[in-house]
This record gives sequence, structure tokens and C-alpha cells, in this order.
Amino acid sequence: MTRPFNFSAGPAAMPLEVLQQAAAEMTNWNGSGVGVMEMSHRGKEFISIYEQAEADVRELLAVPANFKILFMQGGGLAENAIVPLNLSRGQSIDVVITGSWSEKSYLEAGKYCTAHVAASSADSHFTSLPAAEQWQLSHDAQYVHICTNETIHGVEFHTLPDLQALGSEAPLVIDFSSHVLSRTVDWSKVGLAFGGAQKNIGPAGVTLVIVREDLMGHALRSCPSAFDYQVVAAHGSMYNTPPTYSIYMAGLTFQWLKRQKQGELSGVAAMEHQNIAKAKLLYDFLDNASFYSNKVAHDCRSRMNVPFFLADESRNDAFLAGAKALGLLQLKGHKSVGGMRASLYNAMPIAGVQALVDYMQAFEKTQA
Amino acid sequence: MTRPFNFSAGPAAMPLEVLQQAAAEMTNWNGSGVGVMEMSHRGKEFISIYEQAEADVRELLAVPANFKILFMQGGGLAENAIVPLNLSRGQSIDVVITGSWSEKSYLEAGKYCTAHVAASSADSHFTSLPAAEQWQLSHDAQYVHICTNETIHGVEFHTLPDLQALGSEAPLVIDFSSHVLSRTVDWSKVGLAFGGAQKNIGPAGVTLVIVREDLMGHALRSCPSAFDYQVVAAHGSMYNTPPTYSIYMAGLTFQWLKRQKQGELSGVAAMEHQNIAKAKLLYDFLDNASFYSNKVAHDCRSRMNVPFFLADESRNDAFLAGAKALGLLQLKGHKSVGGMRASLYNAMPIAGVQALVDYMQAFEKTQA
Repeated sequence: MTRPFNFSAGPAAMPLEVLQQAAAEMTNWNGSGVGVMEMSHRGKEFISIYEQAEADVRELLAVPANFKILFMQGGGLAENAIVPLNLSRGQSIDVVITGSWSEKSYLEAGKYCTAHVAASSADSHFTSLPAAEQWQLSHDAQYVHICTNETIHGVEFHTLPDLQALGSEAPLVIDFSSHVLSRTVDWSKVGLAFGGAQKNIGPAGVTLVIVREDLMGHALRSCPSAFDYQVVAAHGSMYNTPPTYSIYMAGLTFQWLKRQKQGELSGVAAMEHQNIAKAKLLYDFLDNASFYSNKVAHDCRSRMNVPFFLADESRNDAFLAGAKALGLLQLKGHKSVGGMRASLYNAMPIAGVQALVDYMQAFEKTQA
Repeated sequence: MTRPFNFSAGPAAMPLEVLQQAAAEMTNWNGSGVGVMEMSHRGKEFISIYEQAEADVRELLAVPANFKILFMQGGGLAENAIVPLNLSRGQSIDVVITGSWSEKSYLEAGKYCTAHVAASSADSHFTSLPAAEQWQLSHDAQYVHICTNETIHGVEFHTLPDLQALGSEAPLVIDFSSHVLSRTVDWSKVGLAFGGAQKNIGPAGVTLVIVREDLMGHALRSCPSAFDYQVVAAHGSMYNTPPTYSIYMAGLTFQWLKRQKQGELSGVAAMEHQNIAKAKLLYDFLDNASFYSNKVAHDCRSRMNVPFFLADESRNDAFLAGAKALGLLQLKGHKSVGGMRASLYNAMPIAGVQALVDYMQAFEKTQA
């Protein structure tokens, strides 16, 4: 039986070869006699897994030496508190609201500091991005928060804002949960990046945090020690017992990513090339269809999460049932947006997108 | 090849049949076509896994209906902050210090409230428990914290204190990380119990919290939403994306526990019977040996974690090397205590303890 194509927004499809390797090693990793779940996090076997994963993600994302890579717990929603606990100093921050996730970040940050809305695309129902030149940045913000890919609304920053050029000295914090490792990152514009693993990294339960060293060490007293970046970094992400198996799975995914090739390209660059092609295939189809539509402005359409609508929404259930019968899973849109959503993370092959487009064409014909 | 016996203090050995089932289902759970890691936490497949796990742990531990069962992240160390954030109301609490873990809890709680030391066994180097009748309980404590099994020092409460009989109206908070599910719990004496999974439950990265409903809803404003028990409970542990695979593995372990039988006994009672026998085998050997010793008072020796010492500590490395050669792994003691430590969690069969005792006898003979 061929595997279905799983368009889940997260937790999401993982590469089959990663899952197969994990299954093969489940009871006995690398001749150690024990499975990865059973290893002391302080033992040399797990330390080797950890160090390889950290080195691989540093290489894949070209993370500069003055950034620490942390593996934490709690996902993006916990980081909505952990970031201001560590970086706000109880003062003020700027947030650009471009969808559900940045809005949640804004609301949670208000517990710890004065959070200003520098810009919002709520008026467009989050189908566009507010132009950076019009952001109202505060002169005293401790950082500026953006969500670089809004999973629910399908809006993505294709260029990171240059805060210095906009007159701000504040570091940029990016929530890159739902497009991490799908594209390269310009670290010269970033102070801190965080992402839950359950889209492009591995299983839910581990959070990747990449933080410029000078931003650590200023946590509020009320920051739990287990979530103080300085404490976590000083203990090599082992202040508390880390989610060892999730880190191992992330490491297998990093290795898989490093094996990706597209012509001259490899790793994340190869994956980005593939992700551009996958997104173009689906968006071109949507733009040429009369029965389907995507409402997001062309310059900020997400490569990862593509919300779309049927012209006749009374056909939604039939569309989903027909898709499922063909092994095209998890296409229902988020309840706050409605319609459909296809998530095209790294593990989704272009054949999956082609199968979706083929089905959408066939379904449309039955609606005449 | 037979599996080695893994005495790791945690992350620790897991039942082989649990690992084998997980491996078999890795790419395709129950005919769904996708692996558990790839499932949306909102989908009916994962919800069924979650609900079964919750029902099973409620049954196994006989948790009363007025307690909520939460699956959280961050492990015991994060709970050291999360508990006072939720329960202290910024006022005062009592802590009984009986080893490294309760000491850490005490220090972290001090960030959020006034933490009093009600009693301490530091004078005995944590080889005994302070008698409950002598605890100096405050009249205004919001709760009393104890660690019911000190993983590092090998000290266990075999009876929970009855705080009401001691004149306190405060609820009892127990950190039962390293002996959860190894024995029954008298919930009439408990307000909240928490435990990291990586000893008796499953992989590191999920924390089991069992909390009496009336204790929720009083979190400090600085409590991150993702760690507010009331918020977590209201969302069925899905306010943030839960560590889905870790919960699935915990669920497989719960099923394995439910299958355990010892004569008339089943589940946790059967496991407790077995754990008593395992601990007796090792302690009886230690008490009758001249070359080995355990320093913990007899009435509070841990069934789960047995620290012991060689009479000639210059032989420690030889002891560990010989053990490893026989497939007896992870016997080195915690650096703060030294010597050796054998952790005898649920997944350790009595055959493993017998193999350890046999080796210890043989090793001693070579030292004459």
C-alpha cells in the first residue's frame, strides 16, 4: 500500500525514511543494546546524538557562532511567555500582528511588559502584510516580534524587515515555527528565532530556540529556571531532562535534510527550491480555477500553508470525503478561517501536491 | 542477543514489548496510514489515543473524580516553578527537604512565595526522613511540598503524611516523579502530584500532573498560560500542542501495566508486589555483605533507587567495567553521592536484580 499524502498543519507528515530508521533502531540504537528513549541524557551515547543534532541544525540554517541553539519544551505558545520573560526586562516591546499566532504572542506578552501593536493586518482579515515602512516602531522597545509564517492564515514574510533601516535599534524576534528549515534565514536581521518542532523538525514536544548571546542573561525574576535562556544555554539544554527522543527524531530529520539535493543545491537551499515549486504548482492552479480561490495577497502567500475555498461551500464535506478516499488527508481548514488548507511542509513531496491538484480538477468537473 | 539490564536512573529502561509495538506502528498506526507522530492532535485518531491514556492512568492510580489529569511539558524541574505559580498565591508554603530534588523545589519556589523549611534531613546527609510529628508546619502555608522518592539519595516515603492529623489545613503536594506507578497512592492525603515521565511512564518530555480541582484557578498573573493548570485543564491538555508521541508511549506503558498480574493482583498492585520483591532481594544482599553497603535508614529505603558503596572505592571502575561486560548498564552513582546506584523501575525484571546480585557476589570474590 502506498502511503497517503498527509496535509496536516501540524503535527505533520514526517519523511518515511526517518520513521523507518527510528523504527529499526527502537530497541537497540547503534549496537548500544538500548533504545534512545532508554538512554540517560548524561551518557555518551545520547550526548553524541545531541551534539550531532545541534551541529547539523547549525550547519543547515547557517547559524552564526554568536547564536546559541537551545532545545526546549512547551512549543511556540510557551515561548509567547518565555520570550518576554527573558527579553522584555519588564519594559516595552513592539508586535506586528499578521494573524492568529502573532496575536496570541501579543496578548501573552502583555503579562510581562507593555506590548505595543506596531502594525496589524486585521483590517484585511490577515490576507496581507502591513508594509514595513508604515510600522509604528517605539523608540524604547526591547524587541520587535513578528510571526514569519502564519500557519492559520497562510501568510509568510518572504523578506525579513531590516529594523535598523526602519530606525529601530531593537532586536527582531521571529516565530518561525511553521516554516523553519523550509528556507534560508538572514541572521543579520534576527536577534532570536523560535519554533515548535511539529511541522518541519520532528515530533511535537521540542522547541528550537536560536538566540544571539548578548540577549541572554536579562530574565525577569519570575522566569522559571527551566525556561531561562541563560540557564538552559549554560547547561547545554540539560538543566532539566531534555525531551531526548524528540531531539533524536529532530536529528534524524536534520540528517535527511542534509541528504536533499536539487541540481547544485543541497540541504535547506535544495528544500527551498522544492518548496517554491510545490507552492507554485498549487497557487497557479488556484489562480486559474474558477471553482477554487485563495484570498491572500500574492506577495505574502505562504509556501507552507495554503488556505483555499470552494466556490460552493456546501460541497466542502463532499470534497473532503473524496480527498480522503484517495489518500489525501487533513485538508479541512482551521475553524477560524474555514474552507480548506493544504500544508506543504518539507516532508510533502511534489507528487503529493500534484495528486491534490489532479483531485481538485476532477472534483470540479463533477460539480458542473 | 539478550537485552542488557539497564539500571539507568532516568531516562530509564522501558518494557521491551512497548518498544516493539511502537516500532511496529511507527509508519502506520492502526490502519490510519500515518504514524502517531504525524497525527494532528485535534484529529479523532489522536484524541482516541489521548483519552485512552488518560482513562488508563486514572484507573491504574485510582484517581478520584475530583482530580484532573494533565499531560504537560518541562518535567519535574519546570514544575518546581509551575506549582508555586499556580498554588502559592504569592504567600507562603512549607517544604520538607529530604534530598536534592526537594531542595531544588524549595529554592525555585522562593522566587514566587515565601518558602519555609518545615523539616530537613540534611544533617543525616539525606539518609533518613525527618519524623512527621516534628515538622514545623506553618499555620498559613498554601501547601506543603515533599518529594516522595528522592532519586539521587534513595529515600522514599512509604507512608504519606496526614497533614490534618499534624494540625495543618494545607494541601499536600508530592513530587512522585521517580516512583509514580510503582505503588498505590492514598489520594485522601494529596492535593497535587506531579512527575516527569522518564522513569516509570515513558519517554522524557511529558509531565504527569494530577491536581484536585479546587486548587486550580488561582495562578499568579506571571504564570505562563501554557502552564496555568486551569487553562491546561480547560483545553484537555491541548492549549498548546501536546507532546503527542510521548503521550502515546505513556499510553502503551499504561496498557502494559494493566496486563501485569501477580496471583490475585493486577496493574499497579501487581507491580508494587514485584517492586517489593526486587528491592528486598537487593537490600537483603547488601545488608548481608561486608564488601557492599547502603547507608539509608531501613524505614525509608527507596524501592526504586538503591545507592550502594563498595568497601574499597578504588575498585569502582573495575566494578563498573565488569558489570558492563555482563550487560549490567548504568550503575554509576550520582556524582553528588558517589558510589553506585541501581534503579529498579517497573520495567526492570527481577531477573535483572538477580543478575546484579550474582555479579556483585562474584566480583566480591575476586577482591579477596
